[in-house]
Amino acid sequence: MSTVKLLEYSEAPERAQKVFDDIQQTRQTDFINNFWKAMANQPNTMERLWSNLKTVMAPGALDGLTKELIYIAVSIANNCDYCIHSHTANAYAKGMTDEQYEELMAVIAMAHQTNALATGMKVKVDEAFKK
Amino acid sequence: MSTVKLLEYSEAPERAQKVFDDIQQTRQTDFINNFWKAMANQPNTMERLWSNLKTVMAPGALDGLTKELIYIAVSIANNCDYCIHSHTANAYAKGMTDEQYEELMAVIAMAHQTNALATGMKVKVDEAFKK
Amino acid sequence: MSTVKLLEYSEAPERAQKVFDDIQQTRQTDFINNFWKAMANQPNTMERLWSNLKTVMAPGALDGLTKELIYIAVSIANNCDYCIHSHTANAYAKGMTDEQYEELMAVIAMAHQTNALATGMKVKVDEAFKK
Amino acid sequence: MSTVKLLEYSEAPERAQKVFDDIQQTRQTDFINNFWKAMANQPNTMERLWSNLKTVMAPGALDGLTKELIYIAVSIANNCDYCIHSHTANAYAKGMTDEQYEELMAVIAMAHQTNALATGMKVKVDEAFKK
Amino acid sequence: MSTVKLLEYSEAPERAQKVFDDIQQTRQTDFINNFWKAMANQPNTMERLWSNLKTVMAPGALDGLTKELIYIAVSIANNCDYCIHSHTANAYAKGMTDEQYEELMAVIAMAHQTNALATGMKVKVDEAFKK
Amino acid sequence: MSTVKLLEYSEAPERAQKVFDDIQQTRQTDFINNFWKAMANQPNTMERLWSNLKTVMAPGALDGLTKELIYIAVSIANNCDYCIHSHTANAYAKGMTDEQYEELMAVIAMAHQTNALATGMKVKVDEAFKK
Repeated sequence: MSTVKLLEYSEAPERAQKVFDDIQQTRQTDFINNFWKAMANQPNTMERLWSNLKTVMAPGALDGLTKELIYIAVSIANNCDYCIHSHTANAYAKGMTDEQYEELMAVIAMAHQTNALATGMKVKVDEAFKK
Repeated sequence: MSTVKLLEYSEAPERAQKVFDDIQQTRQTDFINNFWKAMANQPNTMERLWSNLKTVMAPGALDGLTKELIYIAVSIANNCDYCIHSHTANAYAKGMTDEQYEELMAVIAMAHQTNALATGMKVKVDEAFKK
Repeated sequence: MSTVKLLEYSEAPERAQKVFDDIQQTRQTDFINNFWKAMANQPNTMERLWSNLKTVMAPGALDGLTKELIYIAVSIANNCDYCIHSHTANAYAKGMTDEQYEELMAVIAMAHQTNALATGMKVKVDEAFKK
Repeated sequence: MSTVKLLEYSEAPERAQKVFDDIQQTRQTDFINNFWKAMANQPNTMERLWSNLKTVMAPGALDGLTKELIYIAVSIANNCDYCIHSHTANAYAKGMTDEQYEELMAVIAMAHQTNALATGMKVKVDEAFKK
Repeated sequence: MSTVKLLEYSEAPERAQKVFDDIQQTRQTDFINNFWKAMANQPNTMERLWSNLKTVMAPGALDGLTKELIYIAVSIANNCDYCIHSHTANAYAKGMTDEQYEELMAVIAMAHQTNALATGMKVKVDEAFKK
Repeated sequence: MSTVKLLEYSEAPERAQKVFDDIQQTRQTDFINNFWKAMANQPNTMERLWSNLKTVMAPGALDGLTKELIYIAVSIANNCDYCIHSHTANAYAKGMTDEQYEELMAVIAMAHQTNALATGMKVKVDEAFKK
């Protein structure tokens, strides 16, 4: 149902295969998820994206799990089916507990609710909050 | 510019004043931000919302700062001016460093980018990601 | 701050002036709001839009106030500053009470909250809800 | 395909079963829809949500059908599959006619169109619309 | 799974059949896509919409393919499944190459990323950009 | 009102100054817009973003103006104030005519309208549109 063909390793252009190799090595797994099989049709974007993603998602000032929770929050707000599924799976793989998932969902739901109220009443930003 | 009047303590109905009291006590500050001055026009919603918010945002399986980062992510995706300002200020107040803020913004930006790609190409969800 | 000049009656092209005339007559007021002054730069779109809007917003199977409440709900979800202000003003002009406004905002906030939860957990649609 | 298991009554924790009981009693039906079977994994959120929802959706200054129409409008703007299906079904159950549904959809579509135009041209809010 | 029945030509009301006729003649094809079969339940909206769409999408100051690319960009941002599929198909039918599709997706993804950053940091609009 | 300080050239860290230099050389202008003054607080993201943006926005299979039109479409759908202003200015600078702007806005508005209808009625994607 995708707008592009999902390319397996053997069908992918050489530049895409190199990205597949690096994904597998970085993640220490043979599994390649469909997002990258779709991106393999567009090697320019694929190379740029994977390089950026590897940098951005590496643990740093924020740990890897926290980054996944933030990713899930954005993906739900944008209603990206694929991303909700893949990053929820990632978060569990990185150790998210069911209690953490419940609190994550509760914070996300609360944020959507107060976003709607603050936007709906066009509440003026407090001077104290401005830089 | 709000669609409702921002009510100061002395102008607020009694039920709203009680919520103001609890906010000040919980947060250990005299400062009441405009969101609650707006909500004071609607005591039913205000009481329910504050009670829920206090529960949801209390540190639990996720710590207080992580909850603010998630709140910021949702507020940016929903483009809620007020909420972006207030929760960014909250996160700094809870100890967010500039390095953490940079990584937060980088993850949020990356998520918006891959959300658009996965949605745009309607990538099929991998079976491995499903429960 | 608009991306187009707001055209007053005397500056507007003749086709736009005719739409201004019809707006004033339909609404029984001399007041022309900025949206139409902006649209006056684009007479083709302006004529089509006003004609459609007059038809769609006229009381029918749904009364005029209910239509404004629905318009506000969409405008908040889309975070359209201009539209939130103008349609909230319209709803008050059509008789919305403060109690109705409180309930409107409460329903909108609740919907955003459950939307986030149902989307976040990718809840499967019940067969009973399908046609 | 959900990120959580849909819990039937017999599998649900005791606190969730009590919410199921109240839903069935309030709605006078044995049917429990999937949203609540998903929420049953998270009894804290489930209890809070059901209690809020029962209050907010009860007929008051706005009647029950009007509240469903507003809920549909938000759910479409947020593109929540589950919510669009469930609240459209609810609205028909509360007496929505096909004529009302056509007008609802027409108002929602019109609002999305003018939202885009007002946002796209960054039309300045009229002073007359401000409080 | 739609909320309305998809009406084939023979089941559609007479006014809807006339729109079907005009769609087939304008597009020089017998194929009627599901969107119009859904709209056929609402002849008022269907007539207005088709008339507007025919005007707006006709080649003018912007060519037909450019208009489809813009349509795709909006549909991805709004995450409209149906519209992403139909307008991507339309764009290919109007001659879009795979290279153009790759660049389209790259621009859309980049825009989502910088949108999130500019919104997240609430960057002040430069005076030079204002009219 | 930004959440970060807008850094002028002399205040920016050295890595940010190098990006400023490249922006000025690439665009053949001394003008640096506020977005980059904000990004200068985050040199890692700034370097990555500018490098990506220069690649993505360069004329290729799609010309420079078409890329700006697509950028505007996304920015309006995401309601990014800053991006709407900056990319509308960019498009005019790259030769967009008022007639093209009118058609751009008309297509964007139409897309938002049919997105809402297709999403609202959950219209099933035609097999003919799938790959």
